[in-house]
Amino acid sequence: MGWRNGYIAVDWGTTNRRAYRVGSDGRVSQEFEDECGLMAVPRGGFEAAAAQISARLGDLPMLLAGMVGSNRGWREAPYVPCPASGADLAANIAWVDPGRIGIVPGVSQARAAGADVMRGEEIQVLGAAAAGMVPADCLICHPGTHAKWIRLAGGRIQFFRTMMTGELFSLLSKHSILADRLQADAEPDAAFRTAARQGLNGAELVASLFGIRARYLLGESLEDGSAVASGLLIGSDVRAGLRLGEGDGPIVLMGRPELVELYAAALDEAGRRTVQVDGADAFLAGARLVTEML
Amino acid sequence: MGWRNGYIAVDWGTTNRRAYRVGSDGRVSQEFEDECGLMAVPRGGFEAAAAQISARLGDLPMLLAGMVGSNRGWREAPYVPCPASGADLAANIAWVDPGRIGIVPGVSQARAAGADVMRGEEIQVLGAAAAGMVPADCLICHPGTHAKWIRLAGGRIQFFRTMMTGELFSLLSKHSILADRLQADAEPDAAFRTAARQGLNGAELVASLFGIRARYLLGESLEDGSAVASGLLIGSDVRAGLRLGEGDGPIVLMGRPELVELYAAALDEAGRRTVQVDGADAFLAGARLVTEML
Repeated sequence: MGWRNGYIAVDWGTTNRRAYRVGSDGRVSQEFEDECGLMAVPRGGFEAAAAQISARLGDLPMLLAGMVGSNRGWREAPYVPCPASGADLAANIAWVDPGRIGIVPGVSQARAAGADVMRGEEIQVLGAAAAGMVPADCLICHPGTHAKWIRLAGGRIQFFRTMMTGELFSLLSKHSILADRLQADAEPDAAFRTAARQGLNGAELVASLFGIRARYLLGESLEDGSAVASGLLIGSDVRAGLRLGEGDGPIVLMGRPELVELYAAALDEAGRRTVQVDGADAFLAGARLVTEML
Repeated sequence: MGWRNGYIAVDWGTTNRRAYRVGSDGRVSQEFEDECGLMAVPRGGFEAAAAQISARLGDLPMLLAGMVGSNRGWREAPYVPCPASGADLAANIAWVDPGRIGIVPGVSQARAAGADVMRGEEIQVLGAAAAGMVPADCLICHPGTHAKWIRLAGGRIQFFRTMMTGELFSLLSKHSILADRLQADAEPDAAFRTAARQGLNGAELVASLFGIRARYLLGESLEDGSAVASGLLIGSDVRAGLRLGEGDGPIVLMGRPELVELYAAALDEAGRRTVQVDGADAFLAGARLVTEML
Protein backbone atom coordinates (compact mmCIF):
# COMPACT_ATOMS: atom_id res chain seq x y z
CA MET A 1 0.00 0.00 0.00
CA GLY A 2 1.53 3.28 -1.09
CA TRP A 3 1.35 6.89 -0.05
CA ARG A 4 0.18 7.97 -3.52
CA ASN A 5 -3.36 6.86 -2.71
CA GLY A 6 -3.56 9.30 0.17
CA TYR A 7 -2.27 9.48 3.72
CA ILE A 8 -2.80 11.00 7.11
CA ALA A 9 -0.32 13.65 8.31
CA VAL A 10 -0.15 14.55 11.99
CA ASP A 11 1.67 17.50 13.57
CA TRP A 12 1.92 16.00 17.07
CA GLY A 13 3.29 18.29 19.73
CA THR A 14 3.60 18.40 23.49
CA THR A 15 0.18 19.89 24.19
CA ASN A 16 -1.79 19.57 20.94
CA ARG A 17 -2.00 17.56 17.76
CA ARG A 18 -3.38 18.48 14.35
CA ALA A 19 -4.30 15.69 11.97
CA TYR A 20 -5.09 15.94 8.22
CA ARG A 21 -6.40 13.45 5.71
CA VAL A 22 -4.68 14.12 2.41
CA GLY A 23 -6.27 12.61 -0.73
CA SER A 24 -4.57 11.14 -3.79
CA ASP A 25 -4.99 14.58 -5.38
CA GLY A 26 -2.82 16.09 -2.62
CA ARG A 27 -5.72 18.02 -1.10
CA VAL A 28 -6.91 17.97 2.49
CA SER A 29 -10.36 16.41 2.69
CA GLN A 30 -10.72 16.26 6.45
CA GLU A 31 -8.84 17.50 9.51
CA PHE A 32 -9.12 18.00 13.23
CA GLU A 33 -7.15 19.41 16.15
CA ASP A 34 -7.35 18.24 19.73
CA GLU A 35 -5.45 18.47 22.99
CA CYS A 36 -4.17 14.93 22.82
CA GLY A 37 -0.53 16.05 22.84
CA LEU A 38 2.28 14.07 24.47
CA MET A 39 1.31 15.18 27.94
CA ALA A 40 -2.19 13.74 27.54
CA VAL A 41 -1.06 10.32 26.29
CA PRO A 42 -0.44 7.76 29.06
CA ARG A 43 2.63 5.54 28.96
CA GLY A 44 2.10 2.89 26.29
CA GLY A 45 -0.91 4.77 24.99
CA PHE A 46 0.33 5.97 21.61
CA GLU A 47 -1.00 3.01 19.63
CA ALA A 48 -4.50 3.72 20.91
CA ALA A 49 -4.04 7.45 20.39
CA ALA A 50 -3.07 6.83 16.75
CA ALA A 51 -5.98 4.42 16.30
CA GLN A 52 -8.32 7.25 17.30
CA ILE A 53 -6.95 9.24 14.40
CA SER A 54 -7.51 6.38 11.93
CA ALA A 55 -11.00 5.92 13.28
CA ARG A 56 -11.79 9.55 12.48
CA LEU A 57 -9.84 10.09 9.27
CA GLY A 58 -9.69 6.63 7.68
CA ASP A 59 -7.41 3.63 7.32
CA LEU A 60 -4.45 5.24 5.56
CA PRO A 61 -0.67 5.30 6.09
CA MET A 62 0.28 7.85 8.66
CA LEU A 63 3.16 10.34 8.78
CA LEU A 64 3.83 11.85 12.21
CA ALA A 65 6.04 14.83 13.01
CA GLY A 66 6.92 16.85 16.08
CA MET A 67 7.60 15.89 19.68
CA VAL A 68 5.95 12.49 19.10
CA GLY A 69 9.41 11.53 17.83
CA SER A 70 11.22 12.63 20.99
CA ASN A 71 12.40 10.41 23.82
CA ARG A 72 9.15 11.29 25.61
CA GLY A 73 7.06 10.40 22.56
CA TRP A 74 5.97 7.21 20.82
CA ARG A 75 9.26 6.20 19.28
CA GLU A 76 12.47 8.20 19.23
CA ALA A 77 13.36 9.39 15.74
CA PRO A 78 17.08 10.31 16.00
CA TYR A 79 18.07 13.77 14.83
CA VAL A 80 19.41 14.33 11.32
CA PRO A 81 22.44 16.65 11.40
CA CYS A 82 22.63 20.00 9.61
CA PRO A 83 22.71 20.73 6.72
CA ALA A 84 19.44 18.81 6.31
CA SER A 85 17.14 18.36 3.32
CA GLY A 86 13.73 16.85 2.76
CA ALA A 87 15.47 13.75 1.37
CA ASP A 88 17.39 13.45 4.65
CA LEU A 89 14.12 13.50 6.56
CA ALA A 90 12.55 10.87 4.30
CA ALA A 91 15.60 8.60 4.51
CA ASN A 92 15.59 8.73 8.30
CA ILE A 93 11.96 8.12 9.14
CA ALA A 94 11.56 6.09 12.33
CA TRP A 95 9.08 3.37 11.39
CA VAL A 96 6.64 2.26 14.04
CA ASP A 97 4.97 0.04 11.46
CA PRO A 98 7.18 -0.19 8.36
CA GLY A 99 5.71 1.57 5.36
CA ARG A 100 2.58 2.34 7.31
CA ILE A 101 3.28 4.52 10.36
CA GLY A 102 6.44 6.61 10.30
CA ILE A 103 7.84 9.45 12.40
CA VAL A 104 9.83 12.30 10.86
CA PRO A 105 13.24 12.90 12.51
CA GLY A 106 14.24 16.19 14.08
CA VAL A 107 17.32 18.15 13.04
CA SER A 108 20.44 18.75 15.13
CA GLN A 109 23.40 21.07 14.96
CA ALA A 110 26.81 20.01 16.23
CA ARG A 111 28.49 21.73 19.12
CA ALA A 112 31.09 23.48 16.97
CA ALA A 113 28.30 25.50 15.34
CA GLY A 114 26.38 25.88 18.64
CA ALA A 115 24.70 22.70 19.86
CA ASP A 116 21.01 22.84 19.03
CA VAL A 117 18.00 20.72 18.17
CA MET A 118 14.59 21.13 16.55
CA ARG A 119 11.67 18.80 16.19
CA GLY A 120 8.58 19.80 14.24
CA GLU A 121 9.81 22.97 12.56
CA GLU A 122 12.05 21.10 10.06
CA ILE A 123 9.16 19.59 8.10
CA GLN A 124 7.48 22.99 7.89
CA VAL A 125 10.44 24.98 6.63
CA LEU A 126 11.68 22.32 4.20
CA GLY A 127 8.14 21.85 2.94
CA ALA A 128 7.67 25.59 2.46
CA ALA A 129 10.91 25.79 0.49
CA ALA A 130 10.04 22.78 -1.70
CA ALA A 131 6.61 24.25 -2.45
CA GLY A 132 8.05 27.65 -3.33
CA MET A 133 6.26 29.34 -0.43
CA VAL A 134 9.64 30.70 0.69
CA PRO A 135 12.89 31.21 -1.24
CA ALA A 136 15.45 28.40 -1.21
CA ASP A 137 17.82 30.86 0.47
CA CYS A 138 16.29 32.86 3.29
CA LEU A 139 16.12 33.47 7.02
CA ILE A 140 13.04 32.11 8.79
CA CYS A 141 11.84 33.05 12.25
CA HIS A 142 9.47 30.57 13.89
CA PRO A 143 8.26 32.11 17.19
CA GLY A 144 7.06 29.96 20.06
CA THR A 145 7.96 28.69 23.53
CA HIS A 146 11.33 27.85 22.02
CA ALA A 147 11.55 30.12 19.00
CA LYS A 148 13.70 28.94 16.09
CA TRP A 149 15.67 31.08 13.69
CA ILE A 150 16.56 29.01 10.67
CA ARG A 151 18.83 29.82 7.76
CA LEU A 152 17.87 27.99 4.58
CA ALA A 153 20.52 27.70 1.89
CA GLY A 154 19.85 25.86 -1.35
CA GLY A 155 16.58 24.64 0.15
CA ARG A 156 18.36 22.93 3.04
CA ILE A 157 18.49 23.80 6.75
CA GLN A 158 22.01 25.14 6.96
CA PHE A 159 22.08 26.64 10.45
CA PHE A 160 19.64 27.44 13.22
CA ARG A 161 19.34 28.71 16.73
CA THR A 162 16.74 28.18 19.44
CA MET A 163 15.68 31.18 21.53
CA MET A 164 14.09 30.58 24.94
CA THR A 165 12.07 33.78 24.53
CA GLY A 166 8.60 32.32 24.96
CA GLU A 167 9.58 30.16 27.90
CA LEU A 168 11.30 33.09 29.66
CA PHE A 169 8.17 35.23 29.26
CA SER A 170 6.09 32.37 30.62
CA LEU A 171 8.41 31.91 33.64
CA LEU A 172 8.29 35.63 34.38
CA SER A 173 4.52 35.84 34.07
CA LYS A 174 3.85 32.75 36.17
CA HIS A 175 6.52 32.65 38.85
CA SER A 176 8.49 35.90 39.12
CA ILE A 177 8.12 39.01 41.23
CA LEU A 178 6.86 40.70 38.03
CA ALA A 179 4.01 38.20 37.58
CA ASP A 180 1.20 40.51 38.71
CA ARG A 181 2.27 43.05 36.09
CA LEU A 182 2.44 40.52 33.24
CA GLN A 183 -1.09 39.15 33.09
CA ALA A 184 -2.27 41.14 30.07
CA ASP A 185 -1.60 40.00 26.51
CA ALA A 186 1.20 41.96 24.90
CA GLU A 187 0.17 44.00 21.86
CA PRO A 188 2.51 45.46 19.23
CA ASP A 189 1.85 48.96 20.58
CA ALA A 190 4.10 51.92 21.32
CA ALA A 191 5.26 50.50 24.68
CA PHE A 192 6.15 47.21 23.01
CA ARG A 193 8.06 48.95 20.24
CA THR A 194 10.01 51.14 22.66
CA ALA A 195 11.06 48.10 24.67
CA ALA A 196 11.83 46.15 21.50
CA ARG A 197 14.21 48.93 20.43
CA GLN A 198 16.00 48.60 23.76
CA GLY A 199 16.36 44.86 23.18
CA LEU A 200 17.51 45.44 19.60
CA ASN A 201 20.11 47.87 20.91
CA GLY A 202 21.56 45.23 23.23
CA ALA A 203 19.91 46.08 26.56
CA GLU A 204 20.69 43.22 28.94
CA LEU A 205 17.54 41.48 30.17
CA VAL A 206 18.93 41.07 33.67
CA ALA A 207 19.35 44.85 33.84
CA SER A 208 16.08 45.91 32.21
CA LEU A 209 13.28 43.75 33.56
CA PHE A 210 13.24 44.97 37.16
CA GLY A 211 12.19 48.44 35.99
CA ILE A 212 8.68 47.02 35.53
CA ARG A 213 8.52 46.27 39.25
CA ALA A 214 10.22 49.52 40.28
CA ARG A 215 7.86 51.71 38.26
CA TYR A 216 4.92 49.99 39.95
CA LEU A 217 6.41 50.42 43.44
CA LEU A 218 7.05 54.09 42.68
CA GLY A 219 3.36 54.61 42.06
CA GLU A 220 2.95 54.47 38.30
CA SER A 221 -0.27 52.90 37.15
CA LEU A 222 1.37 50.32 35.01
CA GLU A 223 -0.77 48.84 32.27
CA ASP A 224 2.07 48.05 29.91
CA GLY A 225 4.09 45.48 31.87
CA SER A 226 3.46 42.67 29.38
CA ALA A 227 4.30 44.88 26.42
CA VAL A 228 7.54 46.02 28.05
CA ALA A 229 8.71 42.53 29.07
CA SER A 230 7.66 41.05 25.76
CA GLY A 231 9.31 43.88 23.84
CA LEU A 232 12.61 43.48 25.71
CA LEU A 233 12.61 39.72 25.18
CA ILE A 234 11.58 39.75 21.52
CA GLY A 235 13.90 42.67 20.74
CA SER A 236 16.78 40.69 22.22
CA ASP A 237 15.66 37.58 20.32
CA VAL A 238 15.52 39.46 17.00
CA ARG A 239 18.92 41.05 17.63
CA ALA A 240 20.44 37.60 18.03
CA GLY A 241 18.38 36.04 15.26
CA LEU A 242 19.27 38.57 12.58
CA ARG A 243 22.93 37.65 13.04
CA LEU A 244 22.16 34.29 11.42
CA GLY A 245 21.19 35.89 8.15
CA GLU A 246 23.00 37.47 5.26
CA GLY A 247 21.89 40.38 3.12
CA ASP A 248 18.80 42.41 3.82
CA GLY A 249 16.04 40.33 2.23
CA PRO A 250 12.69 39.89 3.92
CA ILE A 251 12.49 37.69 7.01
CA VAL A 252 9.99 34.85 6.81
CA LEU A 253 7.70 34.60 9.84
CA MET A 254 5.92 31.34 10.52
CA GLY A 255 3.86 30.61 13.63
CA ARG A 256 0.95 31.66 15.80
CA PRO A 257 -0.59 34.90 14.47
CA GLU A 258 -0.44 36.85 17.77
CA LEU A 259 3.25 36.05 18.18
CA VAL A 260 4.01 36.69 14.52
CA GLU A 261 2.50 40.16 14.90
CA LEU A 262 4.84 40.99 17.77
CA TYR A 263 7.89 39.72 15.88
CA ALA A 264 6.82 41.63 12.78
CA ALA A 265 6.69 44.84 14.84
CA ALA A 266 10.14 44.19 16.34
CA LEU A 267 11.57 43.41 12.89
CA ASP A 268 9.99 46.61 11.60
CA GLU A 269 11.82 48.48 14.37
CA ALA A 270 14.99 46.78 13.14
CA GLY A 271 14.29 48.11 9.66
CA ARG A 272 13.55 44.69 8.17
CA ARG A 273 10.70 43.64 5.92
CA THR A 274 8.79 40.48 6.73
CA VAL A 275 6.62 37.98 4.91
CA GLN A 276 4.29 35.62 6.70
CA VAL A 277 3.73 31.97 5.89
CA ASP A 278 0.98 29.88 7.41
CA GLY A 279 2.44 27.09 9.53
CA ALA A 280 -0.29 24.57 8.70
CA ASP A 281 0.19 25.12 4.95
CA ALA A 282 3.93 24.70 5.41
CA PHE A 283 3.43 21.49 7.39
CA LEU A 284 1.23 20.02 4.65
CA ALA A 285 3.81 20.96 2.02
CA GLY A 286 6.43 19.18 4.12
CA ALA A 287 4.29 16.07 4.45
CA ARG A 288 3.87 16.05 0.66
CA LEU A 289 7.62 16.47 0.14
CA VAL A 290 8.48 13.59 2.46
CA THR A 291 5.75 11.17 1.39
CA GLU A 292 6.65 11.66 -2.28
CA MET A 293 10.05 10.19 -1.43
CA LEU A 294 8.71 7.12 0.38
CA MET B 1 16.40 57.18 76.53
CA GLY B 2 19.04 57.68 73.83
CA TRP B 3 20.83 55.52 71.30
CA ARG B 4 24.24 56.32 72.84
CA ASN B 5 23.65 53.79 75.61
CA GLY B 6 23.36 50.99 73.11
CA TYR B 7 20.76 49.72 70.68
CA ILE B 8 19.56 46.74 68.75
CA ALA B 9 20.05 46.73 64.96
CA VAL B 10 18.07 44.31 62.81
CA ASP B 11 18.63 43.50 59.14
CA TRP B 12 15.14 42.16 58.46
CA GLY B 13 14.58 40.65 55.06
CA THR B 14 11.97 38.58 53.28
CA THR B 15 13.21 35.17 54.41
CA ASN B 16 15.66 35.87 57.25
CA ARG B 17 16.54 38.39 59.90
CA ARG B 18 19.82 39.10 61.67
CA ALA B 19 19.73 40.98 64.96
CA TYR B 20 22.67 42.53 66.85
CA ARG B 21 22.97 44.07 70.28
CA VAL B 22 25.38 47.00 70.04
CA GLY B 23 26.85 48.33 73.30
CA SER B 24 27.60 51.93 74.28
CA ASP B 25 31.17 51.23 73.10
CA GLY B 26 29.85 50.50 69.60
CA ARG B 27 30.72 46.82 69.79
CA VAL B 28 28.43 43.88 69.18
CA SER B 29 27.93 41.95 72.40
CA GLN B 30 25.29 39.52 71.21
CA GLU B 31 23.63 38.52 67.94
CA PHE B 32 21.44 35.92 66.33
CA GLU B 33 19.99 35.01 62.96
CA ASP B 34 16.73 33.19 62.36
CA GLU B 35 14.24 32.49 59.59
CA CYS B 36 11.66 34.88 60.94
CA GLY B 37 11.66 36.99 57.76
CA LEU B 38 8.58 38.77 56.41
CA MET B 39 7.13 35.59 54.98
CA ALA B 40 7.14 33.93 58.41
CA VAL B 41 5.41 36.81 60.23
CA PRO B 42 1.60 36.60 60.23
CA ARG B 43 -0.49 39.70 59.54
CA GLY B 44 -0.35 41.94 62.59
CA GLY B 45 2.46 39.86 64.04
CA PHE B 46 5.39 42.28 63.82
CA GLU B 47 5.01 43.66 67.32
CA ALA B 48 5.31 40.16 68.75
CA ALA B 49 8.16 39.34 66.36
CA ALA B 50 10.05 42.44 67.57
CA ALA B 51 9.30 41.58 71.20
CA GLN B 52 11.03 38.23 70.67
CA ILE B 53 14.15 40.16 69.69
CA SER B 54 14.00 42.35 72.81
CA ALA B 55 13.47 39.29 74.94
CA ARG B 56 16.69 37.77 73.58
CA LEU B 57 18.90 40.86 73.24
CA GLY B 58 17.59 43.26 75.89
CA ASP B 59 15.30 46.25 76.29
CA LEU B 60 17.01 48.76 74.00
CA PRO B 61 15.90 51.07 71.18
CA MET B 62 15.68 49.21 67.93
CA LEU B 63 16.71 50.19 64.41
CA LEU B 64 15.25 48.02 61.66
CA ALA B 65 16.29 47.95 58.00
CA GLY B 66 15.38 45.93 54.93
CA MET B 67 12.08 44.64 53.60
CA VAL B 68 10.47 45.15 57.02
CA GLY B 69 9.98 48.72 55.76
CA SER B 70 8.18 47.67 52.57
CA ASN B 71 4.45 47.66 51.98
CA ARG B 72 4.47 44.00 52.95
CA GLY B 73 6.40 44.69 56.14
CA TRP B 74 5.63 46.21 59.53
CA ARG B 75 5.33 49.85 58.51
CA GLU B 76 6.09 51.34 55.12
CA ALA B 77 9.14 53.58 55.19
CA PRO B 78 8.84 55.65 51.99
CA TYR B 79 11.84 55.69 49.66
CA VAL B 80 14.38 58.51 49.82
CA PRO B 81 15.31 59.67 46.30
CA CYS B 82 18.84 59.54 44.85
CA PRO B 83 21.32 61.04 45.53
CA ALA B 84 20.96 59.75 49.09
CA SER B 85 23.20 60.11 52.14
CA GLY B 86 23.24 58.64 55.63
CA ALA B 87 21.70 61.90 56.86
CA ASP B 88 18.83 61.41 54.42
CA LEU B 89 18.21 57.95 55.86
CA ALA B 90 18.30 59.23 59.45
CA ALA B 91 15.95 62.13 58.66
CA ASN B 92 13.41 59.82 57.08
CA ILE B 93 13.15 57.02 59.59
CA ALA B 94 9.62 55.63 59.81
CA TRP B 95 8.90 55.51 63.54
CA VAL B 96 6.79 52.65 64.81
CA ASP B 97 7.41 53.88 68.35
CA PRO B 98 8.94 57.39 68.25
CA GLY B 99 12.56 57.43 69.37
CA ARG B 100 12.37 53.77 70.28
CA ILE B 101 11.59 51.59 67.23
CA GLY B 102 12.44 53.04 63.80
CA ILE B 103 12.64 51.66 60.28
CA VAL B 104 15.26 52.88 57.81
CA PRO B 105 13.83 54.04 54.45
CA GLY B 106 14.81 52.51 51.12
CA VAL B 107 16.24 54.53 48.24
CA SER B 108 14.57 55.20 44.89
CA GLN B 109 15.68 56.46 41.52
CA ALA B 110 13.38 58.50 39.30
CA ARG B 111 12.22 57.26 35.94
CA ALA B 112 14.40 59.66 33.95
CA ALA B 113 17.49 57.88 35.31
CA GLY B 114 15.84 54.45 35.08
CA ALA B 115 13.13 53.79 37.67
CA ASP B 116 14.57 51.66 40.45
CA VAL B 117 14.32 50.90 44.15
CA MET B 118 16.43 49.33 46.88
CA ARG B 119 15.69 48.43 50.46
CA GLY B 120 18.35 47.05 52.76
CA GLU B 121 21.46 47.67 50.67
CA GLU B 122 21.44 51.46 51.26
CA ILE B 123 22.34 51.20 54.95
CA GLN B 124 25.19 48.81 54.13
CA VAL B 125 26.82 50.85 51.40
CA LEU B 126 26.43 54.21 53.15
CA GLY B 127 27.71 52.68 56.36
CA ALA B 128 30.71 51.16 54.60
CA ALA B 129 31.56 54.52 53.06
CA ALA B 130 31.18 56.41 56.35
CA ALA B 131 33.42 53.88 58.11
CA GLY B 132 36.08 54.07 55.42
CA MET B 133 35.58 50.43 54.47
CA VAL B 134 35.06 51.58 50.85
CA PRO B 135 36.10 54.80 49.09
CA ALA B 136 33.61 57.68 49.03
CA ASP B 137 33.66 57.36 45.23
CA CYS B 138 33.38 53.83 43.95
CA LEU B 139 31.25 51.23 42.21
CA ILE B 140 29.70 48.58 44.43
CA CYS B 141 28.18 45.29 43.30
CA HIS B 142 25.83 43.64 45.78
CA PRO B 143 24.84 40.22 44.38
CA GLY B 144 21.60 38.51 45.37
CA THR B 145 18.13 37.58 44.13
CA HIS B 146 17.92 41.17 42.91
CA ALA B 147 21.54 42.22 42.60
CA LYS B 148 22.31 45.91 42.98
CA TRP B 149 25.06 47.87 41.28
CA ILE B 150 25.54 51.12 43.13
CA ARG B 151 27.67 54.13 42.25
CA LEU B 152 28.82 56.06 45.31
CA ALA B 153 29.92 59.64 44.73
CA GLY B 154 31.04 61.83 47.62
CA GLY B 155 29.83 59.14 49.99
CA ARG B 156 26.27 59.32 48.65
CA ILE B 157 24.28 56.86 46.56
CA GLN B 158 24.33 58.65 43.22
CA PHE B 159 22.93 56.03 40.87
CA PHE B 160 22.06 52.36 40.95
CA ARG B 161 20.56 49.54 38.97
CA THR B 162 18.83 46.33 40.00
CA MET B 163 19.66 43.15 38.10
CA MET B 164 17.21 40.23 38.20
CA THR B 165 20.13 37.82 37.82
CA GLY B 166 19.52 35.73 40.93
CA GLU B 167 15.79 35.50 40.38
CA LEU B 168 16.24 34.48 36.73
CA PHE B 169 18.63 31.69 37.75
CA SER B 170 16.14 30.57 40.37
CA LEU B 171 13.25 30.55 37.85
CA LEU B 172 15.33 28.53 35.40
CA SER B 173 16.46 26.03 38.01
CA LYS B 174 13.01 25.53 39.50
CA HIS B 175 10.54 25.80 36.65
CA SER B 176 12.19 25.70 33.22
CA ILE B 177 12.98 22.93 30.76
CA LEU B 178 16.61 23.33 31.90
CA ALA B 179 15.75 22.64 35.55
CA ASP B 180 17.17 19.08 35.67
CA ARG B 181 20.52 20.37 34.43
CA LEU B 182 20.69 23.23 36.97
CA GLN B 183 20.56 21.41 40.29
CA ALA B 184 24.30 21.61 41.11
CA ASP B 185 25.83 24.68 42.75
CA ALA B 186 27.74 26.80 40.26
CA GLU B 187 31.45 27.10 40.95
CA PRO B 188 33.82 29.71 39.49
CA ASP B 189 35.44 27.05 37.31
CA ALA B 190 36.51 27.00 33.67
CA ALA B 191 32.97 26.34 32.39
CA PHE B 192 31.66 29.27 34.43
CA ARG B 193 34.39 31.57 33.15
CA THR B 194 33.85 30.59 29.53
CA ALA B 195 30.12 31.31 29.83
CA ALA B 196 30.81 34.53 31.73
CA ARG B 197 32.99 35.72 28.84
CA GLN B 198 30.09 35.10 26.48
CA GLY B 199 27.83 37.18 28.71
CA LEU B 200 30.48 39.90 29.00
CA ASN B 201 30.73 39.95 25.21
CA GLY B 202 27.01 40.61 24.88
CA ALA B 203 25.62 37.14 24.18
CA GLU B 204 21.84 37.38 24.41
CA LEU B 205 20.43 35.16 27.16
CA VAL B 206 17.42 34.15 25.05
CA ALA B 207 19.84 32.83 22.42
CA SER B 208 22.37 31.14 24.70
CA LEU B 209 20.51 29.24 27.39
CA PHE B 210 18.88 26.55 25.25
CA GLY B 211 22.31 25.16 24.38
CA ILE B 212 22.34 23.58 27.83
CA ARG B 213 19.31 21.51 26.91
CA ALA B 214 20.50 20.78 23.38
CA ARG B 215 23.90 19.49 24.53
CA TYR B 216 22.15 17.12 26.91
CA LEU B 217 19.74 15.88 24.22
CA LEU B 218 22.68 15.31 21.89
CA GLY B 219 24.19 12.91 24.40
CA GLU B 220 26.79 14.97 26.23
CA SER B 221 27.17 14.06 29.87
CA LEU B 222 26.49 17.52 31.13
CA GLU B 223 27.79 18.26 34.60
CA ASP B 224 28.28 21.96 34.06
CA GLY B 225 24.75 23.21 33.38
CA SER B 226 24.65 25.40 36.49
CA ALA B 227 28.07 26.87 35.76
CA VAL B 228 27.06 27.68 32.18
CA ALA B 229 23.71 29.27 33.07
CA SER B 230 25.18 31.13 36.01
CA GLY B 231 28.13 32.30 33.91
CA LEU B 232 25.90 33.61 31.13
CA LEU B 233 23.66 35.44 33.62
CA ILE B 234 26.43 36.90 35.76
CA GLY B 235 28.51 37.82 32.70
CA SER B 236 25.55 39.71 31.32
CA ASP B 237 24.94 41.32 34.72
CA VAL B 238 28.56 42.47 35.01
CA ARG B 239 28.54 43.80 31.44
CA ALA B 240 25.56 46.01 32.32
CA GLY B 241 26.83 46.86 35.79
CA LEU B 242 30.25 48.08 34.72
CA ARG B 243 28.57 50.71 32.57
CA LEU B 244 27.52 52.48 35.79
CA GLY B 245 31.10 53.13 36.80
CA GLU B 246 33.83 55.49 35.75
CA GLY B 247 37.56 54.85 35.59
CA ASP B 248 39.10 51.47 36.21
CA GLY B 249 39.33 51.34 40.00
CA PRO B 250 38.51 48.17 41.91
CA ILE B 251 34.90 47.05 42.15
CA VAL B 252 33.59 46.55 45.67
CA LEU B 253 31.78 43.24 46.17
CA MET B 254 29.43 42.90 49.11
CA GLY B 255 27.19 39.89 49.73
CA ARG B 256 27.01 36.15 50.26
CA PRO B 257 30.48 34.59 49.88
CA GLU B 258 29.51 31.94 47.30
CA LEU B 259 27.91 34.59 45.07
CA VAL B 260 30.73 37.06 45.61
CA GLU B 261 33.19 34.40 44.40
CA LEU B 262 31.27 33.98 41.16
CA TYR B 263 31.08 37.74 40.56
CA ALA B 264 34.78 38.09 41.38
CA ALA B 265 35.58 35.49 38.72
CA ALA B 266 33.39 37.24 36.14
CA LEU B 267 34.96 40.62 36.99
CA ASP B 268 38.38 39.03 36.66
CA GLU B 269 37.38 37.88 33.17
CA ALA B 270 36.40 41.50 32.49
CA GLY B 271 39.89 42.57 33.56
CA ARG B 272 38.73 44.31 36.72
CA ARG B 273 40.15 44.10 40.21
CA THR B 274 37.78 43.53 43.13
CA VAL B 275 37.78 44.12 46.85
CA GLN B 276 35.38 42.34 49.16
CA VAL B 277 33.53 43.87 52.08
CA ASP B 278 31.60 41.84 54.61
CA GLY B 279 27.91 42.71 54.43
CA ALA B 280 27.31 42.26 58.16
CA ASP B 281 30.18 44.62 59.01
CA ALA B 282 28.80 47.14 56.52
CA PHE B 283 25.32 46.86 58.01
CA LEU B 284 26.65 47.52 61.51
CA ALA B 285 28.61 50.52 60.23
CA GLY B 286 25.38 51.81 58.69
CA ALA B 287 23.45 51.34 61.91
CA ARG B 288 26.16 53.29 63.73
CA LEU B 289 26.04 56.05 61.11
CA VAL B 290 22.26 56.41 61.34
CA THR B 291 21.91 56.09 65.12
CA GLU B 292 24.60 58.72 65.69
CA MET B 293 22.30 61.17 63.90
CA LEU B 294 19.20 60.33 65.96
